[in-house]
Amino acid sequence: MYFEGKFKEYLDDLASNKPAPGGGSGAAAAGALGISLLSMVANFTIGKKKYQDVEAEIKEILSSTEKLRAKLEGLIDEDVAAYGEISAAYKMPKESDEEKKARTEAIQAALKTAMAVPLAICRNLSEAIKLCGPLLEKGNMNLVSDVGVGAELIAAGFASGLLNVEINLSGIKDSEMVEQIKTELYPKEKEMQIIKEKIVKETKGKI
Amino acid sequence: MYFEGKFKEYLDDLASNKPAPGGGSGAAAAGALGISLLSMVANFTIGKKKYQDVEAEIKEILSSTEKLRAKLEGLIDEDVAAYGEISAAYKMPKESDEEKKARTEAIQAALKTAMAVPLAICRNLSEAIKLCGPLLEKGNMNLVSDVGVGAELIAAGFASGLLNVEINLSGIKDSEMVEQIKTELYPKEKEMQIIKEKIVKETKGKI
Repeated sequence: MYFEGKFKEYLDDLASNKPAPGGGSGAAAAGALGISLLSMVANFTIGKKKYQDVEAEIKEILSSTEKLRAKLEGLIDEDVAAYGEISAAYKMPKESDEEKKARTEAIQAALKTAMAVPLAICRNLSEAIKLCGPLLEKGNMNLVSDVGVGAELIAAGFASGLLNVEINLSGIKDSEMVEQIKTELYPKEKEMQIIKEKIVKETKGKI
Repeated sequence: MYFEGKFKEYLDDLASNKPAPGGGSGAAAAGALGISLLSMVANFTIGKKKYQDVEAEIKEILSSTEKLRAKLEGLIDEDVAAYGEISAAYKMPKESDEEKKARTEAIQAALKTAMAVPLAICRNLSEAIKLCGPLLEKGNMNLVSDVGVGAELIAAGFASGLLNVEINLSGIKDSEMVEQIKTELYPKEKEMQIIKEKIVKETKGKI
């Protein structure tokens, strides 16, 4: 049985009115789930006689998916830590002008730290989605639906990460930074959608 | 730190070449993540003076999300068990005609059992997505992005569940059953997509 211990504790705390974990952490968890399925497809391809011609390439893909999986898994807890910083900044005293200034600066710094987590989620998932195509084309045909599920969860993790970037950006006053992040992420959002739809369509064609 | 113990073990096993967990279980986990966020939004609304007019309604929503969450959480492990049945059926002897017949019947029965898990995922997530609208309209405004993330993860869990229904249906010979399931799920798929897009658009409008 898997759904017990820390796994159960995580979802219970996510569902509760504890300050964290929240949506950013959930986005990382969904992304990690999706990437895990890509690793699974690679692991079920490697060592199979039928797929020996593509084994070297699949091993490279597995190395990439496992690196990305470790990053997303780390972000599940990093988001919780970053949220703590924001919370602490909002609780700073705001009586004198000096206190107000220090608090505003601390909030701005905490928002930037907090935004870095979903930004990393989006960046890593942008890389991960590109591994679905080669896996669907060359990986173990018995696991096509798992590539499709991987793509769905990676895309949802990205979209969820983006919502968390946007909610943090809405409080950040550094307009140059805001513009820069949007210029980076909106084309990635379009690309994600296009690749995801292509992978799901091709998956359904192979079922 | 959440990502350790059973939570880590689950993703490690999902990524490995163990026979299970696989995509169906991952779909249930993604759905459970999404529903947890809806419970979180409800929990952060209840007991707040600003939201006392809607408190009774939000409590009802929380009761529904918590019931649905428990169902999805259960399906994470049920999918693993169902996969074991299929595996066992395929390993049955197939020397004599009688053995072949018994094996075919066992495979058909196991496929139906296995399909029931992602079917339950889809049915429960179809209910869950309908709770996003009232939460976005009446829930704590500070958590709008979490409703959006909830909708993204619920929709991805549904789409992933559907892929797993379809891969099982492709092996099921009972054509009446296959038709019945498709007639039920394809309209639900459309409805899911429409509600999800509406919720995400409204969430972005409120950020």
